[in-house]
Amino acid sequence: MKVFNYRYVKSEDAEGGSEGTKVRWLITKDTGANNFAMRLFEIKPEGHTPLHEHPWEHEVFVLEGEGIIMTRNGEVKFKKGDVIFISPNEKHQFVNKSNKGTKFLCIIPYI
Amino acid sequence: MKVFNYRYVKSEDAEGGSEGTKVRWLITKDTGANNFAMRLFEIKPEGHTPLHEHPWEHEVFVLEGEGIIMTRNGEVKFKKGDVIFISPNEKHQFVNKSNKGTKFLCIIPYI
Repeated sequence: MKVFNYRYVKSEDAEGGSEGTKVRWLITKDTGANNFAMRLFEIKPEGHTPLHEHPWEHEVFVLEGEGIIMTRNGEVKFKKGDVIFISPNEKHQFVNKSNKGTKFLCIIPYI
Repeated sequence: MKVFNYRYVKSEDAEGGSEGTKVRWLITKDTGANNFAMRLFEIKPEGHTPLHEHPWEHEVFVLEGEGIIMTRNGEVKFKKGDVIFISPNEKHQFVNKSNKGTKFLCIIPYI
């Protein structure tokens, strides 16, 4: 068993195509997890993740703040306490249009 | 894509052996998730989950409150903002010994 505060995990720049977005890989294969990884994203005001799609799903829980998700069909709002499921191969981009930071967990499978 | 507040998901009594514990199955196969499920647990003061073990892991993020995990090697404290990884077949029990509710996400694989 491992118990640690999320702040002890290194905060890194998120992948290319992001702006003002940091990610902490909280639980990974290095932790002993072989099925899925837990990451924590923090997006500054006006920041965003890449507009992209990929063959794995996202399971998201919004911890703080609010934002929108850009999709093929327009924008979808989200805020603290929301649960988001993004299907495999669904185009998406998280954007923080508010004036406060947005923080969410995003869990992905190891496939 | 699905976006909804966690409070819209039914709060049910947790499995046998629990006391004062509710669970919401936030993301499941019904949502379209085939690899892992996201649940949200709420434990009242003096409540607990069962002391048990099983062949799947837990990836946990603590949203509110504090508590302890009973293990074979004694108690481990946890609190808001903590990340918990429980390996497959590791005995564990979440116990709320505080005077406030405890809330955490617990993600499990579909295996």
